[in-house]
Amino acid sequence: MTSSTRPTLVIGNKNFSSWSLRPWLLLKHFDVDFAEIRLPLDTPEFYATIGRYSPTGRVPVLQDGELVVWDSLAILEYSNERWLEGAGWPADRATRAHARAVSAEMHSGFQALRSECPMDCVRRTRDPISAEARRDVDRIATLWRDCRNRYGGPFLFGGFSIADAMYAPVALRITSYGIDVGPIEREYVGALLGLPALKSWLADAEAEQRNAHKATR
Amino acid sequence: MTSSTRPTLVIGNKNFSSWSLRPWLLLKHFDVDFAEIRLPLDTPEFYATIGRYSPTGRVPVLQDGELVVWDSLAILEYSNERWLEGAGWPADRATRAHARAVSAEMHSGFQALRSECPMDCVRRTRDPISAEARRDVDRIATLWRDCRNRYGGPFLFGGFSIADAMYAPVALRITSYGIDVGPIEREYVGALLGLPALKSWLADAEAEQRNAHKATR
Repeated sequence: MTSSTRPTLVIGNKNFSSWSLRPWLLLKHFDVDFAEIRLPLDTPEFYATIGRYSPTGRVPVLQDGELVVWDSLAILEYSNERWLEGAGWPADRATRAHARAVSAEMHSGFQALRSECPMDCVRRTRDPISAEARRDVDRIATLWRDCRNRYGGPFLFGGFSIADAMYAPVALRITSYGIDVGPIEREYVGALLGLPALKSWLADAEAEQRNAHKATR
Repeated sequence: MTSSTRPTLVIGNKNFSSWSLRPWLLLKHFDVDFAEIRLPLDTPEFYATIGRYSPTGRVPVLQDGELVVWDSLAILEYSNERWLEGAGWPADRATRAHARAVSAEMHSGFQALRSECPMDCVRRTRDPISAEARRDVDRIATLWRDCRNRYGGPFLFGGFSIADAMYAPVALRITSYGIDVGPIEREYVGALLGLPALKSWLADAEAEQRNAHKATR
């Protein structure tokens, strides 16, 4: 791939931007060669720059030549078609429908968990969570168990898929906030945390936070 | 198609359930033969019944034999693969990515407009809307104009696609709440309202509301 055909993924801080993590993880896991532009969220730099890349003013956004694709789920679908020859979703049509259903549920749902426990990779706390956030966690746990029981793991639909990219930030929240879940869910969180691509993201998030602390010293 | 292979779409009230309208409109527009189960939202009947159909307790949900697909966007994607041979999305990969981006933006966004101006097909008012809802309308108008300018109309990506099914409830909100938009947007709303499938949904919504009023007389 020459540098002119290499796509660019514009993302937010690796420590905080859960929506950025999703397409980044898929591309990295499947060894797609891409450039990365990282813009720190909620800074003057972000607001001065993002308009150049994104029609919504949000990250993530993917540039592939002239084409601009925004929204994590649309980037995941496009990446699947463009570079993965469909391997981003389960091969069986009914299983793929199930994977899209759980992915869409994550895309528009779980607001209580998302606002109460924002992704913060390096954080380690054990504060109690609200009943609403607990309801979200319980629904996610049911959904994960159902997938693992049906398809056998280690990921939701057997091998790693877009559905796992969608839920990876939830695994990080469970770890960061010490949220209590059952053994099957813990095993699944472990499978995600064992992915080299996710380890690489987490290392970058840690470095980012170390540098942020230095800058404020 | 025999009745045993006919899929079933479980929906809410036609007057109110914007998420139900989306997959219903796609299936109807493309002449897919399906059974419909309508459950009135927020009633004891709804809560007593929905668990039989939907793992999330929400509509819409599609049953196709043993398979259960929930969430409007996942149902649209599945329907596209199962019955439309891909005709639900634009044929060109880059255009399809654009269509998925605007669809995903609708799927998770525009909360102010959605909560302030809930879909209510028969309603006709002209109340002022908040600055937040106006911002949503302005972004939607920009997105519609961009599509119509690029692809020529009459729908967002030329012919009717899943992206139009996603935005059909917005067209109904613009009509119901008398929201001010420009000429290109009005033309697009007109194209949607001219669809036989949408006319049929609206006729059912009107009948539903007439019967609801009779029942409370």
